[in-house]
Amino acid sequence: MMKFNITAPSFALKAALVDKINNKTKPLGSLGLLENLALQIGLIQETLTPSLLNPTILVFAGDHGIANAGVSAYPQAVTAQMVNNFVQLGAAINVFTAQHGMNLKIIDSGVNATLPPSQNLIDAKMAYGTQNFLDTPAMTIEQCESAIMKGAEIVEKMLVEGCNIIGFGEMGIGNTASASCLMSIICHYPIETCVGRGTGLDDASLKKKIKTLKQALNFHNIQGNNTIETLATFGGFETAMMVGAMLKTAEKSCVLLIDGFISSAALLVASKIYPEILHYCVFSHCSDESGHKKMLAHLQAKPLLNLGLRLGEGSGAALAYPLVVSAVNFLNHMASFESANVSTQMPSIN
Amino acid sequence: MMKFNITAPSFALKAALVDKINNKTKPLGSLGLLENLALQIGLIQETLTPSLLNPTILVFAGDHGIANAGVSAYPQAVTAQMVNNFVQLGAAINVFTAQHGMNLKIIDSGVNATLPPSQNLIDAKMAYGTQNFLDTPAMTIEQCESAIMKGAEIVEKMLVEGCNIIGFGEMGIGNTASASCLMSIICHYPIETCVGRGTGLDDASLKKKIKTLKQALNFHNIQGNNTIETLATFGGFETAMMVGAMLKTAEKSCVLLIDGFISSAALLVASKIYPEILHYCVFSHCSDESGHKKMLAHLQAKPLLNLGLRLGEGSGAALAYPLVVSAVNFLNHMASFESANVSTQMPSIN
Repeated sequence: MMKFNITAPSFALKAALVDKINNKTKPLGSLGLLENLALQIGLIQETLTPSLLNPTILVFAGDHGIANAGVSAYPQAVTAQMVNNFVQLGAAINVFTAQHGMNLKIIDSGVNATLPPSQNLIDAKMAYGTQNFLDTPAMTIEQCESAIMKGAEIVEKMLVEGCNIIGFGEMGIGNTASASCLMSIICHYPIETCVGRGTGLDDASLKKKIKTLKQALNFHNIQGNNTIETLATFGGFETAMMVGAMLKTAEKSCVLLIDGFISSAALLVASKIYPEILHYCVFSHCSDESGHKKMLAHLQAKPLLNLGLRLGEGSGAALAYPLVVSAVNFLNHMASFESANVSTQMPSIN
Repeated sequence: MMKFNITAPSFALKAALVDKINNKTKPLGSLGLLENLALQIGLIQETLTPSLLNPTILVFAGDHGIANAGVSAYPQAVTAQMVNNFVQLGAAINVFTAQHGMNLKIIDSGVNATLPPSQNLIDAKMAYGTQNFLDTPAMTIEQCESAIMKGAEIVEKMLVEGCNIIGFGEMGIGNTASASCLMSIICHYPIETCVGRGTGLDDASLKKKIKTLKQALNFHNIQGNNTIETLATFGGFETAMMVGAMLKTAEKSCVLLIDGFISSAALLVASKIYPEILHYCVFSHCSDESGHKKMLAHLQAKPLLNLGLRLGEGSGAALAYPLVVSAVNFLNHMASFESANVSTQMPSIN
């Protein structure tokens, strides 16, 4: 498999960054998670004056053979229909990226339809959807590795051109089923813990989804020691491509904005191979998909938002982006106690 | 006391708004709290295409006699110093309002210093700080009513000039102590439940703050049946002015963005007199100040953010504002299933 060179950021500036944050005109720690975020981004960029350049949301789209097993509330055709909607600027992610001045690119990683070319659409189709992992691996090892490499290539171009923060979204009917299996194997959690209603299953369908995935997990009987094998067996082309894109973004010391359940599952895979990637991740939100909270806990992540979102597309990443900007802005633009002539906190009161 | 005419918004458009939200190209309910928000703002503005105009953050500043009893980690002089910092554009609220294109006005409701005139500063000084409520009411009833009226006047001008969403922030050393007493009386909670570390008290000082406030509550022995008396006894000029400004904003059917502990305490007072005000409120965040979570629960509020903020100044309101914009934007700009040719959810899977 392709090798990535991912190391933790230098902590050389940590004391200086903490000092700068603490000397802003506000009570110590009173900006909460935004202070952690300012420190993290300062460390990643190795500067006391970080900046966010050409912020970009990538939406990786792919179809899943497992969708034919009735694990989603929507038919498989919706993947291609929604890609078309992205291209026509009609989806939530179009609205939110436009609001925040973010770039948006859609990647056809493996949609089960021939998509007309478009300026915002990157053609990286691996196949017309994965195999149904009920009785065969979703991808071959070669396909999986090739998708990872392709994802890395796609972001490398963007990072070289000056983008330094990327949000990772996805579209793919059936991909919560796929992500639940990845989570179950990598975290060693029972599948029931990892499965949710996806786009909106009712009770009976949720029960069926769990039964179907249990059957698939039993059939493959994978222990998860080989992460690429796990990903190839249960993942999607969009997930694998996201894994490669995430790893390359961290390798280039850029900020990763993680979206919801599927985006986090891709990171789970990436961090299993390269744990240092986590230093570069900002967790945008905790989704309403039932396994996400546990997955974030496993990753020791503190998400910025908790709005009951369960849409995917990178929508949570886009909605959280202004908070990331605020973290950088307060670090760069707020006055210090000294410059503003404001008294500092009294040591103690007696 | 001045009368306000506050009624619940008409629910005439509710079905049409819900229908519009449900027909956007996304799984039903998948935008979580943003969907509630879109519905709320549509109802407030009585339209299927709401808009946010001249968004404004107001920071009401005032000093508190109780500050001299050692209930804050900062000296009283910091109130005036921070107002100066706001005017010089150096504070967090300056950075965040600039980021989001929001107007910012500072109101001198009763700062204990003579402040030089400035374009962003509205002079509405009631006095050089309140009395120390340890042994005398903070304000007279007349002062309190006059501050409420003044707050109403200030926002009425802005609303007439075309602003339709106002965020309510404050600055005042000692005002968490004041707000804790208001909460204790209005919610009938023991004072221990309502007191937190404010700008950052240590354990010993927190203990002292509780003891001091218990003493003050015992001294006045108010039951809270007369809300204006409660406010006059324990409130601040900035709190009273905020109450009037909030009531007028609701009367004019505009959106209120509630900030943290003190802003919510002002709303607690306002909603005790005019409960219908709550229909107009968006709760921006749950702060790290320990009583805030319980106060929000009392108000049956679902805050948008939970970032461990405890800064005040309207900073949480400004940070949450882009989410309010996103709610309005998705309602106005996302494609519907029909317009985008996307299949709707299947009724059930068997």
